[in-house]
Amino acid sequence: MSNNKPTLYTSPSPALLDLYDINNTIVVIIDVFRATSTIATALYNGAKCIIPVDSVAKCIELGKKIEAITAGERDGKIAEGLEYGNSPFEYSKEFISGKTLVLTTTNGTKLLHMALDRGAGHVITGSFPNLSAICEYLIQQKQPVLLGCAAWKDRVNMEDMLFAGAVIHQVKEHFNINCDSSGIAETLYLNAKSDMYGFIKDKQATHFQRLTNFGLEKDIRYCLTPDIANVLPFYEDGKLVVHNGQY
Amino acid sequence: MSNNKPTLYTSPSPALLDLYDINNTIVVIIDVFRATSTIATALYNGAKCIIPVDSVAKCIELGKKIEAITAGERDGKIAEGLEYGNSPFEYSKEFISGKTLVLTTTNGTKLLHMALDRGAGHVITGSFPNLSAICEYLIQQKQPVLLGCAAWKDRVNMEDMLFAGAVIHQVKEHFNINCDSSGIAETLYLNAKSDMYGFIKDKQATHFQRLTNFGLEKDIRYCLTPDIANVLPFYEDGKLVVHNGQY
Repeated sequence: MSNNKPTLYTSPSPALLDLYDINNTIVVIIDVFRATSTIATALYNGAKCIIPVDSVAKCIELGKKIEAITAGERDGKIAEGLEYGNSPFEYSKEFISGKTLVLTTTNGTKLLHMALDRGAGHVITGSFPNLSAICEYLIQQKQPVLLGCAAWKDRVNMEDMLFAGAVIHQVKEHFNINCDSSGIAETLYLNAKSDMYGFIKDKQATHFQRLTNFGLEKDIRYCLTPDIANVLPFYEDGKLVVHNGQY
Repeated sequence: MSNNKPTLYTSPSPALLDLYDINNTIVVIIDVFRATSTIATALYNGAKCIIPVDSVAKCIELGKKIEAITAGERDGKIAEGLEYGNSPFEYSKEFISGKTLVLTTTNGTKLLHMALDRGAGHVITGSFPNLSAICEYLIQQKQPVLLGCAAWKDRVNMEDMLFAGAVIHQVKEHFNINCDSSGIAETLYLNAKSDMYGFIKDKQATHFQRLTNFGLEKDIRYCLTPDIANVLPFYEDGKLVVHNGQY
């Protein structure tokens, strides 16, 4: 099994993150419904940067201090005290271009801070809207990778594993993958890829039901659409910015 | 989604067990390679009972005290100080009939004790060799179920998720399943069921490689064979015994 390829692992839940060494590792934060889909969209539509914070209180405080847009959700709804939610459709070019967004979400921003606290080499965020940007970056970097699923309150979810599987399917020839979670994720993706919306509907994915109850089918379809906001959100100096040019 | 069916959840790793309420719940301990395959086999071949313990020291001490057979493994090999290992082929009728076995393993017996400590309603153990016995019991009981994968040192593994998926596929009409891990497990099983050995070999499952390196292909094939040791190991008064008759 020894070769010169870097390793790739998948962590299906934040509660399993500690099992993986993430020093000198690129950690991809995955929260398909909807944090990392919204992050890609806001940056694609010209947001200056996104500041992820791990609590509503910090979001409100920082938003006031730097006069930024505050946004986020708890349990799928706009959190009390914040102006905007976690839907990619809220962040059109007209609205977000040139602005700074302070964002907090139930699972995605929490995992991002866990990865930073544990000394991740680099942190990027991915979802179907920026699938190709993620894959190209990982292939170019030739560094160890951890695909970190944000899950739902630590319970493994379908859509984040699906995205991990999509990445693995595209990049696997470039990595040494000795990780059953990765094999499971890829199998899941291969079953779903011809109709991802139909797959997660048919499998009664819990988050699908949660969002559908809020009337958010449109968000679900968007978050599962590859490459419609194809930028690479890269964490640097406390902010997520678009990583341009030579990686 | 409301109906009168009991719930069923899948915990893919012992590190996720705390996310599930297991009071008044039947917990199925799953450690396909090889603890729960070996437990089914030893009981099928007439072992009086199996006493699962969570450390090698306890195994040695108790084995001496009650003059039982001591067995177990650490990292896939017979643990130092114990007489026998964790291969189902060690427990033939000639050898084990009428005897008591004290057993400790890397993952399976650890999870079993976690489930007991957290107040599980009932604890049973399952693997492919006793698949039908497990499914029949779960359908008859009409109680909440948690399928608990033993995993490998908390990392999710292919074979335990496969078995969870096999159970789900057989019992799902009788349960209310609102759990993405269960949907993932069933998808995995549906991909694998026509050739489970080929599937986990092709997917380079980590435990497949580990056992193959020890020359244990025969064990792998056995542990993936449905219903060749079709008993129901039931935990009662500190021991696993065969549950007979009316459940």
